[in-house]
Amino acid sequence: MITNTSGEQVVDAWALAASDSRRFTSAPHTWMSTGRLGLRLGDDLLDNTRRPMLRLVEDTSPGDHDLLIPSCDLARYRQLGVEGYHDNCRDNYFEALAAAAIDALPFLPQPINLFMRVPIGRDGSLSIHPPRAAPGDRVRLRALDDVVVVLSACPQDLAPTNGIGRAPTGVDVAVVDTESRP
Amino acid sequence: MITNTSGEQVVDAWALAASDSRRFTSAPHTWMSTGRLGLRLGDDLLDNTRRPMLRLVEDTSPGDHDLLIPSCDLARYRQLGVEGYHDNCRDNYFEALAAAAIDALPFLPQPINLFMRVPIGRDGSLSIHPPRAAPGDRVRLRALDDVVVVLSACPQDLAPTNGIGRAPTGVDVAVVDTESRP
Repeated sequence: MITNTSGEQVVDAWALAASDSRRFTSAPHTWMSTGRLGLRLGDDLLDNTRRPMLRLVEDTSPGDHDLLIPSCDLARYRQLGVEGYHDNCRDNYFEALAAAAIDALPFLPQPINLFMRVPIGRDGSLSIHPPRAAPGDRVRLRALDDVVVVLSACPQDLAPTNGIGRAPTGVDVAVVDTESRP
Repeated sequence: MITNTSGEQVVDAWALAASDSRRFTSAPHTWMSTGRLGLRLGDDLLDNTRRPMLRLVEDTSPGDHDLLIPSCDLARYRQLGVEGYHDNCRDNYFEALAAAAIDALPFLPQPINLFMRVPIGRDGSLSIHPPRAAPGDRVRLRALDDVVVVLSACPQDLAPTNGIGRAPTGVDVAVVDTESRP
């Protein structure tokens, strides 16, 4: 369960199969299953072998979640004029896996951008809008497989990704035992 | 240059950096650059480090190219009722790299689906339609980096991907020296 404590905070999320890091949540395979872009309550997130990994079983937010935009990385912050280091979701992913001594492939899977608001125009245009998630809004993802979940509270502060004039913050994460709380 | 000899044939395409197979063409990073889904004449296809790899410099087809649908694989043909082996773009990718003794990561990057027609509904729904490419329609991709390009004429014959009631075929591929033909 991921709670958007302060509101408007985007969270990049990934799941890897615990037994095989070559299997990971995949937006294109998920779309083939749901028949549409986006992620809605009840949807299963599939891995790149078309097996279900996570299910969105609760969502008290307005339901904006993005599967299209790549994680921020140092190259992105260079484009935005940052000269030194800037925290970024890509490095957070690899640092989290290294800290847990999890051996993963040296590439970043496409993230699930929880709470991220990216309307698609009729001409296919994409635009990043401030999130609508309010303080306390939460999502609950049920593991359908034995997975490692990686989360990064997005540190983007040079685009409206995490709201306008708002410093990125952490979020609250809880692992809930679904056996005792179905 | 890729010529759709018989028309209606989808071609899955990938580019990998010749010097580093951890860099590959990436739909999400391409969208961040163009600001929209799809691929149009003049667009650069970016890699997962946001560097341009290929440019679509010629396109005599109606311009339908998809970056959203994953490659067909054995799991997909199982879903479609195939019990034995079925040729598929995923295996074609790995077999092509193995035949050329190219050491790539053990995962399949998201393909560029040339000539594939996937209209996006206003509600984000995706549907696979027969291609509009006519016999002889061609695209030319200019390499902007030192790349390995992998192509798979999609063998999908259980969905309208490659037309209805039409057996998948090969396509004509030519490497054109852009120094002498700018």
